[in-house]
Amino acid sequence: MKEKEIDLNKILAIRNKVILDKPLIHCITNHISINDCANIVLSVYGQPMMAEHYKEVSDITASSDALAVNLGNITDDRMKSIMISGKRAYEEKIPSIIDIVGVSCSKLRLDFAIDFIDKCKPSIIKGNMSEIKAIFGLDIKSKGIDVNDEDITSDETLNNNIFIVKSLALKTNSTVVSTGAIDIISDGKESYIIKNGCKELSRITGTGCMLNVLIATYLSSRDIINSAILGTVVMGISGELSKGAKGTASFKINLIDNISTIKDEDILDKIKISVVK
Amino acid sequence: MKEKEIDLNKILAIRNKVILDKPLIHCITNHISINDCANIVLSVYGQPMMAEHYKEVSDITASSDALAVNLGNITDDRMKSIMISGKRAYEEKIPSIIDIVGVSCSKLRLDFAIDFIDKCKPSIIKGNMSEIKAIFGLDIKSKGIDVNDEDITSDETLNNNIFIVKSLALKTNSTVVSTGAIDIISDGKESYIIKNGCKELSRITGTGCMLNVLIATYLSSRDIINSAILGTVVMGISGELSKGAKGTASFKINLIDNISTIKDEDILDKIKISVVK
Amino acid sequence: MKEKEIDLNKILAIRNKVILDKPLIHCITNHISINDCANIVLSVYGQPMMAEHYKEVSDITASSDALAVNLGNITDDRMKSIMISGKRAYEEKIPSIIDIVGVSCSKLRLDFAIDFIDKCKPSIIKGNMSEIKAIFGLDIKSKGIDVNDEDITSDETLNNNIFIVKSLALKTNSTVVSTGAIDIISDGKESYIIKNGCKELSRITGTGCMLNVLIATYLSSRDIINSAILGTVVMGISGELSKGAKGTASFKINLIDNISTIKDEDILDKIKISVVK
Repeated sequence: MKEKEIDLNKILAIRNKVILDKPLIHCITNHISINDCANIVLSVYGQPMMAEHYKEVSDITASSDALAVNLGNITDDRMKSIMISGKRAYEEKIPSIIDIVGVSCSKLRLDFAIDFIDKCKPSIIKGNMSEIKAIFGLDIKSKGIDVNDEDITSDETLNNNIFIVKSLALKTNSTVVSTGAIDIISDGKESYIIKNGCKELSRITGTGCMLNVLIATYLSSRDIINSAILGTVVMGISGELSKGAKGTASFKINLIDNISTIKDEDILDKIKISVVK
Repeated sequence: MKEKEIDLNKILAIRNKVILDKPLIHCITNHISINDCANIVLSVYGQPMMAEHYKEVSDITASSDALAVNLGNITDDRMKSIMISGKRAYEEKIPSIIDIVGVSCSKLRLDFAIDFIDKCKPSIIKGNMSEIKAIFGLDIKSKGIDVNDEDITSDETLNNNIFIVKSLALKTNSTVVSTGAIDIISDGKESYIIKNGCKELSRITGTGCMLNVLIATYLSSRDIINSAILGTVVMGISGELSKGAKGTASFKINLIDNISTIKDEDILDKIKISVVK
Repeated sequence: MKEKEIDLNKILAIRNKVILDKPLIHCITNHISINDCANIVLSVYGQPMMAEHYKEVSDITASSDALAVNLGNITDDRMKSIMISGKRAYEEKIPSIIDIVGVSCSKLRLDFAIDFIDKCKPSIIKGNMSEIKAIFGLDIKSKGIDVNDEDITSDETLNNNIFIVKSLALKTNSTVVSTGAIDIISDGKESYIIKNGCKELSRITGTGCMLNVLIATYLSSRDIINSAILGTVVMGISGELSKGAKGTASFKINLIDNISTIKDEDILDKIKISVVK
């Protein structure tokens, strides 16, 4: 663990770049948390565009600064548009991220995600550890969209999970973000573990989807690994800052409030990140 | 009215069972309140799964502990998936609930609901009194999704409405929940009236949909009538506890906060339920 | 600028009419902000109906007191239903409003909006100044759904933009609402500029969509130009009253709270409107 190797100033600089650039972030995401996702992009001064009609998404992706797609509550129409936009992003060299939500409990989504990654070569693949394992080719079968107990990243499973995340990054030539109480991020060369966050984040829906579009907003900077780190850390620390809410709905309000107002000092003060070689 | 016949401890025990079991609740519901619905399931420690693609819903229902479906803002795709999941739930003996929202103002929904009830035999049918009457076969024509004035359960209409709710329960072999200022719940044998709640609940959208998934979460216990009672009471009392909010948006935040933090003592203190023979 | 020519009492009277009438407002709108839109209608005592199935929308529109449609996050199914409802509203002489969101960045939406306006003759056309210009036939190409910098209504562009808004009103025989820091409203005869609002309104998603259904709710009064003015002023002043929130999520809660509780005195005290001849 060599914390000094992380250039926090470079990571934090992405925040200011977004404020200045007001990047257009094309999001094709599920309707469960689509409102929260648009608000997250706006909260950090990005400009969200949630278009999903197959006749308009290609041009909209081409005019965007980053693309975020998400497999939650998937439909045929949205799968079609996600593939069109993913291909266009790849052709135009626009950075992209896919949230592979549900690939561990739905063969439909797993097959689609593998096809998307193969054809569109996203900059970042994000999922919980069961989903990452499923994409990696392991025989994972979850009940619902949450991580299986045995896949959770803990002290016992840490090394094995880092190996899988790193291997998937090498295999796909993407940066891989495995979310959980312990997050693992790897581009195949460098790997990082992040321990920010709190259990309240799992008591509201859509925090994973919000993280996906938050990373996408930072990804407009084209600094892939640092965008993944920054988004993960901002979400985790904003969660920590939101604790003590009266109930789950107030926690969600606090969370978005904190994402919209978090300061560099909060991040420097609370970040829990380590490099793994 | 014999209040002593209600075993409140048995009803309240369902809450703890859900906290321990973290049941997977498959919800196929409208997109107006889908975010709130997922958050309600999470707020009482259930695990929501909002999948609605016809190619994945059958397997997801089969792995779930309860199924909640809802006719709000209906689409062809969602009708198809609701029917697939309803049939699978029936085959697998997984408890299910249908919110028949809009059957009193849309023949499309009425025909579909009748077909669903016939083929899928849901554990619980939930609607306002106009919707319950429409399903029962009375010639009801509403303007919008709200109850017609003449159908509202009041002191004058109470006995007639109880008769209809009980008769529909007997006819369908389901438990029927008629919501309103006075709620009526019947499994055809026992009937109950509940007078919790407040008028502010009708000033925000989706409280009916939230009640549907709240009952579904408790329904994972397979104690059908008590789940219906518990969900109705928790929603009503949480509404009462949320009064005095600055405006309608704060009321909704309070409501979900209170559902996520309500204690057994709050329920015992405020419950207004009577048995009707 | 002749402020005395505006009959504020006539405008404010619409609010009480809505409280008494509880009008049914049929909204076919995007799913990003559909929950907020339903809550806005309810917050001012309207009754929202968000149905969008092509088999039920015609009858539902016919039973409604106003129709609001919106092109955000458009789908084939929703375009089909919007056209059916728009035609029915026109036939039944039910007032209607279209939010032409995205017509400046999507040819699909531009073509559809032009066709809708031609066939359904909406009472009100609402958009930002880039969208209004695009509908007027100017060659506008935006990046995303926000107004282009050069189209923003400012002291320099004011006269030109008023000319376009008024000309579009005359051309379409509709009232046109151009939203922005400076709003322009014209029915082709009288034109108004409104300077209420605050920059925080652009840091959350859906304020334009909420304004659309707010105007629709007032439009049930059939006083077209005054409904447009009232909705625009209520949204702007409620935004001003919501300033100082902890972050963007709290601002949104404040906004809806204030729309649900705003008083005539608040409006009389803060309104910034001028007539332009």
